[in-house]
Amino acid sequence: MAAIKAPSRIAIIGLGLIGGSIALKLKAAHPHLHLVGCSASSEDALGAQAAGAIDTLAETPSAAAAGADLAVLATPPATIAALVAAVSDADGQVLITDTGSVKAPLLRAVQQLPAAARRRIVPAHPITGSHNSGFTAARGDLFAGCRTVITPLADGDADALATVEQFWQSLGAQIVSMDGVEHDRIFAAVSHLPHLVAWALFSAMNRTGDGEEIDRYGAAGLRDGIRLAASDPLMWSQVVTLNRDELLASMNEFSATWEDLKQLVESGGEAKLCAWLEQNRRDGTGD
Amino acid sequence: MAAIKAPSRIAIIGLGLIGGSIALKLKAAHPHLHLVGCSASSEDALGAQAAGAIDTLAETPSAAAAGADLAVLATPPATIAALVAAVSDADGQVLITDTGSVKAPLLRAVQQLPAAARRRIVPAHPITGSHNSGFTAARGDLFAGCRTVITPLADGDADALATVEQFWQSLGAQIVSMDGVEHDRIFAAVSHLPHLVAWALFSAMNRTGDGEEIDRYGAAGLRDGIRLAASDPLMWSQVVTLNRDELLASMNEFSATWEDLKQLVESGGEAKLCAWLEQNRRDGTGD
Repeated sequence: MAAIKAPSRIAIIGLGLIGGSIALKLKAAHPHLHLVGCSASSEDALGAQAAGAIDTLAETPSAAAAGADLAVLATPPATIAALVAAVSDADGQVLITDTGSVKAPLLRAVQQLPAAARRRIVPAHPITGSHNSGFTAARGDLFAGCRTVITPLADGDADALATVEQFWQSLGAQIVSMDGVEHDRIFAAVSHLPHLVAWALFSAMNRTGDGEEIDRYGAAGLRDGIRLAASDPLMWSQVVTLNRDELLASMNEFSATWEDLKQLVESGGEAKLCAWLEQNRRDGTGD
Repeated sequence: MAAIKAPSRIAIIGLGLIGGSIALKLKAAHPHLHLVGCSASSEDALGAQAAGAIDTLAETPSAAAAGADLAVLATPPATIAALVAAVSDADGQVLITDTGSVKAPLLRAVQQLPAAARRRIVPAHPITGSHNSGFTAARGDLFAGCRTVITPLADGDADALATVEQFWQSLGAQIVSMDGVEHDRIFAAVSHLPHLVAWALFSAMNRTGDGEEIDRYGAAGLRDGIRLAASDPLMWSQVVTLNRDELLASMNEFSATWEDLKQLVESGGEAKLCAWLEQNRRDGTGD
Protein backbone atom coordinates (compact mmCIF):
# COMPACT_ATOMS: atom_id res chain seq x y z
CA MET A 1 0.00 0.00 0.00
CA ALA A 2 1.36 3.39 -1.03
CA ALA A 3 2.16 5.90 1.68
CA ILE A 4 -0.72 8.30 2.19
CA LYS A 5 0.08 11.89 1.31
CA ALA A 6 -1.64 14.40 3.56
CA PRO A 7 -3.48 17.15 1.64
CA SER A 8 -1.67 20.50 1.54
CA ARG A 9 -4.38 22.51 -0.23
CA ILE A 10 -7.97 22.01 0.90
CA ALA A 11 -11.14 23.52 -0.56
CA ILE A 12 -13.97 24.11 1.85
CA ILE A 13 -17.23 24.62 -0.03
CA GLY A 14 -19.75 26.19 2.33
CA LEU A 15 -18.56 28.30 5.27
CA GLY A 16 -21.49 28.06 7.66
CA LEU A 17 -21.51 26.28 11.01
CA ILE A 18 -19.91 23.07 9.67
CA GLY A 19 -17.57 24.41 6.94
CA GLY A 20 -16.58 27.36 9.11
CA SER A 21 -15.76 25.09 12.05
CA ILE A 22 -13.64 22.85 9.78
CA ALA A 23 -11.72 25.90 8.53
CA LEU A 24 -11.16 27.29 12.04
CA LYS A 25 -9.84 23.97 13.34
CA LEU A 26 -7.58 23.29 10.32
CA LYS A 27 -6.13 26.81 10.37
CA ALA A 28 -5.41 26.60 14.11
CA ALA A 29 -3.86 23.13 13.95
CA HIS A 30 -2.01 23.43 10.62
CA PRO A 31 -1.25 27.11 9.86
CA HIS A 32 0.78 26.22 6.74
CA LEU A 33 -2.08 24.38 5.06
CA HIS A 34 -3.60 26.43 2.24
CA LEU A 35 -7.38 26.75 2.66
CA VAL A 36 -9.58 27.91 -0.19
CA GLY A 37 -13.08 28.83 0.88
CA CYS A 38 -16.26 29.35 -1.08
CA SER A 39 -19.75 30.25 0.08
CA ALA A 40 -23.08 31.24 -1.46
CA SER A 41 -23.51 33.48 1.60
CA SER A 42 -21.38 36.61 1.36
CA GLU A 43 -21.86 37.07 5.10
CA ASP A 44 -20.27 33.67 5.84
CA ALA A 45 -17.55 34.21 3.20
CA LEU A 46 -16.54 37.62 4.58
CA GLY A 47 -16.82 36.35 8.14
CA ALA A 48 -14.45 33.45 7.46
CA GLN A 49 -12.03 35.73 5.65
CA ALA A 50 -12.07 38.35 8.41
CA ALA A 51 -11.47 35.65 11.04
CA GLY A 52 -8.45 34.36 9.09
CA ALA A 53 -10.10 30.95 8.80
CA ILE A 54 -9.35 30.73 5.06
CA ASP A 55 -6.43 31.89 2.91
CA THR A 56 -8.25 32.44 -0.38
CA LEU A 57 -11.86 33.07 -1.27
CA ALA A 58 -13.01 31.46 -4.54
CA GLU A 59 -16.00 32.60 -6.60
CA THR A 60 -17.37 29.16 -7.44
CA PRO A 61 -17.13 25.63 -6.02
CA SER A 62 -15.23 24.38 -9.09
CA ALA A 63 -12.77 27.28 -8.87
CA ALA A 64 -12.25 26.48 -5.18
CA ALA A 65 -11.61 22.79 -5.93
CA ALA A 66 -9.23 23.45 -8.87
CA GLY A 67 -5.75 22.45 -7.72
CA ALA A 68 -6.91 21.32 -4.28
CA ASP A 69 -5.95 17.90 -2.91
CA LEU A 70 -9.19 17.60 -1.00
CA ALA A 71 -12.59 19.30 -1.37
CA VAL A 72 -14.99 19.27 1.57
CA LEU A 73 -18.63 19.84 0.66
CA ALA A 74 -20.26 21.58 3.62
CA THR A 75 -23.21 23.26 1.92
CA PRO A 76 -26.92 22.79 2.76
CA PRO A 77 -27.90 19.12 2.31
CA ALA A 78 -30.06 19.61 -0.79
CA THR A 79 -27.12 21.05 -2.77
CA ILE A 80 -24.52 18.37 -2.11
CA ALA A 81 -25.53 15.79 -4.75
CA ALA A 82 -25.36 18.37 -7.57
CA LEU A 83 -22.16 19.86 -6.20
CA VAL A 84 -20.23 16.60 -6.26
CA ALA A 85 -20.47 16.47 -10.07
CA ALA A 86 -19.41 20.11 -10.46
CA VAL A 87 -16.43 19.78 -8.13
CA SER A 88 -15.39 16.39 -9.43
CA ASP A 89 -15.33 17.74 -13.01
CA ALA A 90 -13.01 20.52 -12.04
CA ASP A 91 -10.02 18.29 -11.42
CA GLY A 92 -9.96 14.52 -11.80
CA GLN A 93 -7.39 14.25 -9.03
CA VAL A 94 -9.28 15.95 -6.20
CA LEU A 95 -10.47 13.87 -3.28
CA ILE A 96 -14.01 14.70 -2.20
CA THR A 97 -15.74 14.27 1.12
CA ASP A 98 -18.98 15.82 2.35
CA THR A 99 -20.91 16.55 5.53
CA GLY A 100 -24.48 15.72 4.53
CA SER A 101 -26.84 14.00 6.93
CA VAL A 102 -28.64 12.05 4.16
CA LYS A 103 -26.58 9.79 1.91
CA ALA A 104 -28.83 8.17 -0.74
CA PRO A 105 -29.10 11.25 -3.06
CA LEU A 106 -25.31 11.63 -3.06
CA LEU A 107 -24.85 7.91 -3.74
CA ARG A 108 -27.21 8.16 -6.73
CA ALA A 109 -25.38 11.24 -8.08
CA VAL A 110 -22.04 9.53 -7.70
CA GLN A 111 -23.22 6.61 -9.87
CA GLN A 112 -23.44 9.05 -12.81
CA LEU A 113 -19.75 9.98 -12.58
CA PRO A 114 -16.88 8.32 -14.46
CA ALA A 115 -15.27 5.52 -12.44
CA ALA A 116 -12.00 7.45 -11.98
CA ALA A 117 -13.81 10.36 -10.34
CA ARG A 118 -16.13 8.10 -8.36
CA ARG A 119 -13.26 6.21 -6.77
CA ARG A 120 -12.01 9.40 -5.10
CA ILE A 121 -15.28 10.26 -3.32
CA VAL A 122 -15.66 9.36 0.35
CA PRO A 123 -19.06 10.39 1.77
CA ALA A 124 -19.10 11.44 5.41
CA HIS A 125 -21.57 12.66 8.02
CA PRO A 126 -20.18 14.29 11.16
CA ILE A 127 -22.85 13.87 13.86
CA THR A 128 -22.80 17.36 15.26
CA GLY A 129 -24.66 20.60 14.91
CA SER A 130 -26.30 23.38 16.80
CA HIS A 131 -29.61 25.19 16.73
CA ASN A 132 -27.49 28.15 15.57
CA SER A 133 -26.19 28.34 12.01
CA GLY A 134 -23.81 30.38 9.87
CA PHE A 135 -20.11 31.19 10.30
CA THR A 136 -20.83 33.22 13.44
CA ALA A 137 -21.81 29.93 15.13
CA ALA A 138 -18.66 28.11 13.92
CA ARG A 139 -16.06 26.97 16.46
CA GLY A 140 -12.85 24.99 16.14
CA ASP A 141 -13.83 22.36 18.69
CA LEU A 142 -17.12 21.40 17.03
CA PHE A 143 -15.74 18.00 15.99
CA ALA A 144 -13.86 17.15 19.17
CA GLY A 145 -14.96 13.63 20.09
CA CYS A 146 -17.78 13.80 17.52
CA ARG A 147 -18.77 10.55 15.82
CA THR A 148 -18.42 10.83 12.07
CA VAL A 149 -20.02 8.23 9.87
CA ILE A 150 -18.12 7.31 6.70
CA THR A 151 -20.18 5.47 4.08
CA PRO A 152 -17.49 4.16 1.70
CA LEU A 153 -18.45 3.47 -1.91
CA ALA A 154 -18.27 -0.16 -3.03
CA ASP A 155 -15.64 0.64 -5.68
CA GLY A 156 -13.88 3.42 -3.74
CA ASP A 157 -10.11 3.85 -3.64
CA ALA A 158 -8.49 2.52 -0.45
CA ASP A 159 -5.98 5.39 -0.28
CA ALA A 160 -8.75 7.95 -0.75
CA LEU A 161 -10.64 6.33 2.13
CA ALA A 162 -7.56 6.34 4.38
CA THR A 163 -6.77 9.99 3.59
CA VAL A 164 -10.34 11.16 4.23
CA GLU A 165 -10.51 9.18 7.49
CA GLN A 166 -7.27 10.82 8.60
CA PHE A 167 -8.68 14.20 7.65
CA TRP A 168 -11.74 13.74 9.86
CA GLN A 169 -9.64 12.30 12.68
CA SER A 170 -7.38 15.35 12.52
CA LEU A 171 -10.45 17.47 13.33
CA GLY A 172 -11.01 15.34 16.45
CA ALA A 173 -13.72 13.08 15.00
CA GLN A 174 -14.21 9.39 15.77
CA ILE A 175 -14.82 7.38 12.60
CA VAL A 176 -17.66 4.87 12.25
CA SER A 177 -18.15 3.05 8.94
CA MET A 178 -21.46 1.83 7.58
CA ASP A 179 -23.40 1.34 4.39
CA GLY A 180 -25.05 4.51 3.01
CA VAL A 181 -28.56 3.07 2.78
CA GLU A 182 -28.30 1.68 6.31
CA HIS A 183 -27.12 5.14 7.41
CA ASP A 184 -30.28 6.80 6.10
CA ARG A 185 -32.54 4.19 7.71
CA ILE A 186 -30.87 4.58 11.11
CA PHE A 187 -30.83 8.39 11.02
CA ALA A 188 -34.47 8.53 9.93
CA ALA A 189 -35.31 6.59 13.09
CA VAL A 190 -32.99 8.11 15.69
CA SER A 191 -32.52 11.69 14.47
CA HIS A 192 -34.98 12.85 11.81
CA LEU A 193 -38.04 11.30 13.46
CA PRO A 194 -37.30 12.83 16.91
CA HIS A 195 -36.93 16.24 15.29
CA LEU A 196 -40.33 15.99 13.63
CA VAL A 197 -41.93 14.72 16.83
CA ALA A 198 -40.43 17.66 18.74
CA TRP A 199 -41.78 20.09 16.16
CA ALA A 200 -45.28 18.59 16.30
CA LEU A 201 -45.18 18.50 20.10
CA PHE A 202 -44.25 22.15 20.51
CA SER A 203 -46.69 23.18 17.83
CA ALA A 204 -49.51 21.35 19.65
CA MET A 205 -48.37 22.63 23.05
CA ASN A 206 -48.22 26.20 21.81
CA ARG A 207 -51.80 25.89 20.65
CA THR A 208 -53.07 24.42 23.96
CA GLY A 209 -51.00 26.35 26.46
CA ASP A 210 -48.87 29.40 25.92
CA GLY A 211 -45.10 29.73 25.77
CA GLU A 212 -44.84 31.07 29.28
CA GLU A 213 -46.74 28.10 30.69
CA ILE A 214 -44.34 25.78 28.88
CA ASP A 215 -41.33 27.59 30.32
CA ARG A 216 -42.76 27.80 33.83
CA TYR A 217 -44.42 24.42 34.25
CA GLY A 218 -43.00 22.21 31.51
CA ALA A 219 -41.54 18.81 32.37
CA ALA A 220 -37.82 19.03 33.15
CA GLY A 221 -37.09 16.80 30.17
CA LEU A 222 -38.48 19.37 27.75
CA ARG A 223 -35.40 21.53 27.60
CA ASP A 224 -33.54 19.38 25.07
CA GLY A 225 -36.76 18.89 23.15
CA ILE A 226 -37.02 22.66 22.84
CA ARG A 227 -33.51 22.66 21.43
CA LEU A 228 -34.53 20.05 18.83
CA ALA A 229 -37.59 22.08 17.86
CA ALA A 230 -35.42 25.17 17.45
CA SER A 231 -33.25 23.57 14.74
CA ASP A 232 -32.80 25.41 11.44
CA PRO A 233 -36.01 25.05 9.36
CA LEU A 234 -34.22 25.49 6.00
CA MET A 235 -31.72 22.72 6.67
CA TRP A 236 -34.30 20.41 8.18
CA SER A 237 -36.86 20.81 5.42
CA GLN A 238 -34.08 19.69 3.07
CA VAL A 239 -33.03 16.76 5.26
CA VAL A 240 -36.61 15.59 5.61
CA THR A 241 -37.26 15.87 1.88
CA LEU A 242 -34.03 14.09 0.96
CA ASN A 243 -34.73 11.22 3.35
CA ARG A 244 -38.50 11.18 2.83
CA ASP A 245 -39.05 7.49 2.14
CA GLU A 246 -37.10 6.22 5.14
CA LEU A 247 -38.61 8.95 7.28
CA LEU A 248 -42.19 8.18 6.28
CA ALA A 249 -41.60 4.58 7.35
CA SER A 250 -40.42 5.85 10.75
CA MET A 251 -43.29 8.34 10.95
CA ASN A 252 -45.81 5.58 10.25
CA GLU A 253 -44.21 3.43 12.92
CA PHE A 254 -44.61 6.31 15.38
CA SER A 255 -48.22 6.98 14.27
CA ALA A 256 -49.17 3.37 14.93
CA THR A 257 -47.54 3.42 18.37
CA TRP A 258 -49.16 6.75 19.21
CA GLU A 259 -52.65 5.59 18.23
CA ASP A 260 -52.20 2.40 20.29
CA LEU A 261 -51.21 4.48 23.27
CA LYS A 262 -54.12 6.90 22.79
CA GLN A 263 -56.52 3.95 22.64
CA LEU A 264 -55.01 2.64 25.86
CA VAL A 265 -55.40 6.01 27.59
CA GLU A 266 -58.97 6.26 26.35
CA SER A 267 -60.24 2.87 27.40
CA GLY A 268 -57.45 0.59 28.57
CA GLY A 269 -57.50 1.35 32.29
CA GLU A 270 -54.62 1.99 34.65
CA ALA A 271 -53.24 -1.56 34.88
CA LYS A 272 -52.97 -2.09 31.12
CA LEU A 273 -51.43 1.33 30.68
CA CYS A 274 -48.90 0.59 33.41
CA ALA A 275 -47.98 -2.72 31.76
CA TRP A 276 -47.48 -0.93 28.41
CA LEU A 277 -45.30 1.76 30.01
CA GLU A 278 -43.33 -0.86 31.90
CA GLN A 279 -42.68 -2.82 28.72
CA ASN A 280 -41.62 0.27 26.81
CA ARG A 281 -39.61 1.89 29.56
CA ARG A 282 -36.22 3.11 28.44
CA ASP A 283 -33.38 2.75 30.86
CA GLY A 284 -32.75 6.43 31.55
CA THR A 285 -30.41 5.87 34.45
CA GLY A 286 -27.32 5.65 32.28
CA ASP A 287 -26.27 9.26 32.46
CA MET B 1 -55.73 38.50 60.91
CA ALA B 2 -54.58 36.13 63.61
CA ALA B 3 -50.88 35.36 63.87
CA ILE B 4 -50.01 32.17 62.06
CA LYS B 5 -48.77 29.38 64.27
CA ALA B 6 -46.08 27.25 62.66
CA PRO B 7 -46.80 23.50 62.92
CA SER B 8 -44.79 21.67 65.54
CA ARG B 9 -45.92 18.13 64.73
CA ILE B 10 -46.15 17.11 61.09
CA ALA B 11 -47.42 13.86 59.61
CA ILE B 12 -45.84 12.77 56.35
CA ILE B 13 -47.96 10.13 54.66
CA GLY B 14 -45.85 8.40 52.03
CA LEU B 15 -42.07 8.25 52.41
CA GLY B 16 -40.92 7.79 48.81
CA LEU B 17 -39.02 10.33 46.71
CA ILE B 18 -41.33 13.25 47.58
CA GLY B 19 -42.34 12.43 51.17
CA GLY B 20 -38.83 11.25 52.00
CA SER B 21 -37.31 14.47 50.63
CA ILE B 22 -39.76 16.56 52.68
CA ALA B 23 -38.82 14.64 55.83
CA LEU B 24 -35.06 14.96 55.18
CA LYS B 25 -35.29 18.72 54.61
CA LEU B 26 -37.57 19.38 57.61
CA LYS B 27 -35.43 17.28 59.94
CA ALA B 28 -32.22 19.04 58.82
CA ALA B 29 -33.69 22.56 59.07
CA HIS B 30 -35.86 22.11 62.18
CA PRO B 31 -34.48 19.30 64.34
CA HIS B 32 -37.00 19.97 67.12
CA LEU B 33 -40.02 19.50 64.89
CA HIS B 34 -41.74 16.17 65.57
CA LEU B 35 -42.18 14.19 62.35
CA VAL B 36 -44.54 11.23 62.17
CA GLY B 37 -44.08 9.11 59.08
CA CYS B 38 -46.24 6.48 57.49
CA SER B 39 -45.72 4.41 54.37
CA ALA B 40 -47.34 1.45 52.61
CA SER B 41 -43.80 0.44 51.63
CA SER B 42 -41.91 -1.09 54.53
CA GLU B 43 -38.70 -0.48 52.62
CA ASP B 44 -39.36 3.28 52.49
CA ALA B 45 -40.60 3.33 56.11
CA LEU B 46 -37.54 1.54 57.46
CA GLY B 47 -35.24 3.60 55.23
CA ALA B 48 -36.66 6.87 56.54
CA GLN B 49 -36.42 5.64 60.11
CA ALA B 50 -32.83 4.42 59.70
CA ALA B 51 -31.84 7.76 58.15
CA GLY B 52 -33.33 9.64 61.09
CA ALA B 53 -35.68 11.48 58.73
CA ILE B 54 -38.72 10.79 60.95
CA ASP B 55 -39.20 10.60 64.72
CA THR B 56 -42.12 8.18 64.83
CA LEU B 57 -43.47 5.59 62.46
CA ALA B 58 -47.27 5.25 62.44
CA GLU B 59 -49.17 2.20 61.25
CA THR B 60 -51.92 4.00 59.35
CA PRO B 61 -52.41 7.42 57.76
CA SER B 62 -55.09 8.36 60.28
CA ALA B 63 -52.87 7.32 63.18
CA ALA B 64 -50.06 9.43 61.71
CA ALA B 65 -52.34 12.45 61.37
CA ALA B 66 -53.86 12.14 64.87
CA GLY B 67 -52.52 15.02 66.94
CA ALA B 68 -50.53 16.50 64.07
CA ASP B 69 -50.84 20.18 63.13
CA LEU B 70 -50.23 19.44 59.48
CA ALA B 71 -50.54 16.28 57.37
CA VAL B 72 -48.72 16.08 54.05
CA LEU B 73 -50.10 13.51 51.61
CA ALA B 74 -47.19 12.28 49.51
CA THR B 75 -48.51 8.92 48.38
CA PRO B 76 -48.98 7.74 44.75
CA PRO B 77 -51.41 10.07 42.93
CA ALA B 78 -54.29 7.58 42.68
CA THR B 79 -54.47 7.21 46.47
CA ILE B 80 -54.61 10.88 47.47
CA ALA B 81 -58.33 11.59 46.97
CA ALA B 82 -59.35 8.67 49.21
CA LEU B 83 -56.68 9.50 51.77
CA VAL B 84 -57.85 13.07 52.33
CA ALA B 85 -61.14 11.81 53.76
CA ALA B 86 -59.41 9.26 56.02
CA VAL B 87 -56.89 11.76 57.37
CA SER B 88 -59.39 14.58 57.71
CA ASP B 89 -61.70 12.35 59.76
CA ALA B 90 -58.93 11.55 62.17
CA ASP B 91 -58.74 15.05 63.63
CA GLY B 92 -60.92 17.98 62.66
CA GLN B 93 -58.08 20.37 63.49
CA VAL B 94 -55.38 19.00 61.20
CA LEU B 95 -54.27 21.08 58.20
CA ILE B 96 -53.85 19.00 55.06
CA THR B 97 -51.73 19.57 51.99
CA ASP B 98 -50.77 17.14 49.26
CA THR B 99 -48.27 16.64 46.46
CA GLY B 100 -50.40 15.20 43.66
CA SER B 101 -49.83 16.23 40.05
CA VAL B 102 -53.55 15.99 39.16
CA LYS B 103 -56.02 18.09 41.14
CA ALA B 104 -59.59 17.41 39.92
CA PRO B 105 -60.08 14.05 41.73
CA LEU B 106 -58.93 15.60 45.02
CA LEU B 107 -61.23 18.59 44.49
CA ARG B 108 -64.17 16.24 43.94
CA ALA B 109 -63.33 14.22 47.08
CA VAL B 110 -63.01 17.40 49.15
CA GLN B 111 -66.55 18.45 48.18
CA GLN B 112 -67.85 15.40 50.11
CA LEU B 113 -66.28 16.55 53.39
CA PRO B 114 -67.93 18.69 56.07
CA ALA B 115 -67.21 22.40 55.57
CA ALA B 116 -65.06 22.61 58.74
CA ALA B 117 -62.72 19.90 57.43
CA ARG B 118 -62.78 21.24 53.87
CA ARG B 119 -61.65 24.69 54.94
CA ARG B 120 -58.38 23.30 56.29
CA ILE B 121 -57.31 21.58 53.06
CA VAL B 122 -54.78 23.32 50.80
CA PRO B 123 -53.96 21.27 47.67
CA ALA B 124 -50.41 21.61 46.34
CA HIS B 125 -48.26 20.27 43.53
CA PRO B 126 -44.49 20.65 43.81
CA ILE B 127 -43.12 20.56 40.24
CA THR B 128 -40.24 18.25 40.80
CA GLY B 129 -39.39 14.61 40.46
CA SER B 130 -36.84 12.17 39.19
CA HIS B 131 -36.83 9.05 37.10
CA ASN B 132 -35.81 7.35 40.34
CA SER B 133 -38.35 6.67 43.05
CA GLY B 134 -38.53 5.52 46.67
CA PHE B 135 -36.84 6.80 49.82
CA THR B 136 -33.40 5.86 48.48
CA ALA B 137 -33.86 8.58 45.82
CA ALA B 138 -34.98 11.22 48.38
CA ARG B 139 -32.78 14.24 49.04
CA GLY B 140 -33.22 17.32 51.19
CA ASP B 141 -32.63 19.79 48.37
CA LEU B 142 -35.32 18.38 46.05
CA PHE B 143 -37.53 21.46 46.57
CA ALA B 144 -34.81 24.14 46.42
CA GLY B 145 -36.07 26.71 43.92
CA CYS B 146 -38.83 24.35 42.79
CA ARG B 147 -42.10 25.91 41.66
CA THR B 148 -45.00 24.61 43.73
CA VAL B 149 -48.53 25.20 42.53
CA ILE B 150 -51.13 25.83 45.23
CA THR B 151 -54.75 25.44 44.07
CA PRO B 152 -56.69 27.05 46.95
CA LEU B 153 -60.28 25.94 47.55
CA ALA B 154 -62.96 28.59 47.02
CA ASP B 155 -64.13 28.36 50.65
CA GLY B 156 -60.70 27.64 52.14
CA ASP B 157 -59.45 29.17 55.38
CA ALA B 158 -57.02 32.11 54.88
CA ASP B 159 -54.84 31.07 57.83
CA ALA B 160 -54.66 27.51 56.55
CA LEU B 161 -53.55 28.81 53.17
CA ALA B 162 -50.88 31.06 54.71
CA THR B 163 -49.54 28.26 56.93
CA VAL B 164 -49.32 25.78 54.06
CA GLU B 165 -47.64 28.34 51.81
CA GLN B 166 -45.09 28.99 54.55
CA PHE B 167 -44.57 25.27 54.91
CA TRP B 168 -43.72 24.85 51.22
CA GLN B 169 -41.56 27.96 51.23
CA SER B 170 -39.61 26.60 54.21
CA LEU B 171 -38.66 23.64 51.97
CA GLY B 172 -37.26 26.08 49.40
CA ALA B 173 -40.27 26.08 47.06
CA GLN B 174 -41.58 29.08 45.11
CA ILE B 175 -45.36 29.35 45.35
CA VAL B 176 -47.62 29.86 42.32
CA SER B 177 -51.40 30.00 42.80
CA MET B 178 -53.96 28.89 40.25
CA ASP B 179 -57.35 27.27 39.89
CA GLY B 180 -57.32 23.46 40.18
CA VAL B 181 -59.12 22.83 36.88
CA GLU B 182 -56.79 25.23 35.07
CA HIS B 183 -53.87 23.38 36.70
CA ASP B 184 -54.96 20.06 35.21
CA ARG B 185 -55.44 21.57 31.74
CA ILE B 186 -52.00 23.19 31.75
CA PHE B 187 -50.19 20.13 33.08
CA ALA B 188 -51.92 17.87 30.56
CA ALA B 189 -50.45 20.05 27.82
CA VAL B 190 -46.96 20.83 29.11
CA SER B 191 -46.10 17.79 31.21
CA HIS B 192 -48.35 14.76 30.73
CA LEU B 193 -48.52 15.04 26.92
CA PRO B 194 -44.70 15.31 26.50
CA HIS B 195 -44.27 12.19 28.65
CA LEU B 196 -46.65 10.20 26.46
CA VAL B 197 -44.99 11.49 23.30
CA ALA B 198 -41.57 10.50 24.66
CA TRP B 199 -42.89 7.02 25.48
CA ALA B 200 -44.37 6.54 22.01
CA LEU B 201 -41.21 7.92 20.38
CA PHE B 202 -38.84 5.57 22.19
CA SER B 203 -41.17 2.65 21.68
CA ALA B 204 -41.25 3.35 17.90
CA MET B 205 -37.50 3.98 17.79
CA ASN B 206 -36.75 0.77 19.62
CA ARG B 207 -38.76 -1.14 17.06
CA THR B 208 -37.03 0.52 14.06
CA GLY B 209 -33.48 0.83 15.32
CA ASP B 210 -31.90 -0.77 18.35
CA GLY B 211 -30.90 0.76 21.67
CA GLU B 212 -27.24 0.95 20.74
CA GLU B 213 -28.01 2.87 17.56
CA ILE B 214 -30.07 5.34 19.61
CA ASP B 215 -27.22 5.80 22.06
CA ARG B 216 -24.54 6.12 19.37
CA TYR B 217 -26.29 8.17 16.69
CA GLY B 218 -29.31 9.72 18.38
CA ALA B 219 -29.88 13.47 18.09
CA ALA B 220 -28.19 15.35 20.92
CA GLY B 221 -31.60 16.52 22.12
CA LEU B 222 -32.70 12.97 22.87
CA ARG B 223 -30.98 12.65 26.21
CA ASP B 224 -33.66 14.45 28.21
CA GLY B 225 -36.33 12.68 26.19
CA ILE B 226 -34.84 9.39 27.31
CA ARG B 227 -35.12 10.61 30.88
CA LEU B 228 -38.82 11.42 30.35
CA ALA B 229 -39.43 7.98 28.87
CA ALA B 230 -37.73 6.37 31.88
CA SER B 231 -40.21 7.88 34.37
CA ASP B 232 -41.95 5.57 36.81
CA PRO B 233 -44.67 3.59 34.96
CA LEU B 234 -46.80 3.02 38.08
CA MET B 235 -46.96 6.71 38.97
CA TRP B 236 -47.50 7.79 35.38
CA SER B 237 -50.24 5.30 34.61
CA GLN B 238 -52.06 6.80 37.62
CA VAL B 239 -51.42 10.41 36.56
CA VAL B 240 -52.60 9.71 33.02
CA THR B 241 -55.73 7.94 34.23
CA LEU B 242 -56.57 10.66 36.77
CA ASN B 243 -56.16 13.41 34.17
CA ARG B 244 -57.55 11.41 31.25
CA ASP B 245 -60.09 13.89 29.88
CA GLU B 246 -57.72 16.87 29.74
CA LEU B 247 -54.95 14.62 28.44
CA LEU B 248 -57.08 13.15 25.64
CA ALA B 249 -57.80 16.70 24.47
CA SER B 250 -54.05 17.38 24.37
CA MET B 251 -53.38 14.02 22.69
CA ASN B 252 -55.95 14.79 20.00
CA GLU B 253 -54.35 18.18 19.44
CA PHE B 254 -51.00 16.47 18.97
CA SER B 255 -52.50 13.78 16.67
CA ALA B 256 -53.96 16.44 14.39
CA THR B 257 -50.65 18.33 14.24
CA TRP B 258 -48.73 15.13 13.62
CA GLU B 259 -51.01 14.03 10.77
CA ASP B 260 -50.72 17.50 9.18
CA LEU B 261 -46.96 17.28 9.37
CA LYS B 262 -46.90 13.76 7.95
CA GLN B 263 -49.08 14.91 5.05
CA LEU B 264 -46.67 17.77 4.45
CA VAL B 265 -43.66 15.42 4.45
CA GLU B 266 -45.47 13.06 2.11
CA SER B 267 -46.57 15.53 -0.53
CA GLY B 268 -46.02 19.12 0.55
CA GLY B 269 -42.57 19.70 -0.92
CA GLU B 270 -39.58 21.36 0.67
CA ALA B 271 -40.76 25.00 0.59
CA LYS B 272 -44.09 24.33 2.29
CA LEU B 273 -42.39 22.16 4.88
CA CYS B 274 -39.83 24.89 5.56
CA ALA B 275 -42.60 27.46 6.00
CA TRP B 276 -44.37 25.17 8.47
CA LEU B 277 -41.17 24.56 10.45
CA GLU B 278 -40.38 28.27 10.42
CA GLN B 279 -43.83 29.09 11.77
CA ASN B 280 -43.61 26.44 14.48
CA ARG B 281 -40.01 27.00 15.48
CA ARG B 282 -39.42 27.22 19.20
CA ASP B 283 -36.96 29.77 20.46
CA GLY B 284 -34.28 27.50 21.86
CA THR B 285 -31.73 30.21 22.57
CA GLY B 286 -33.17 31.04 25.98
CA ASP B 287 -31.06 28.69 28.03
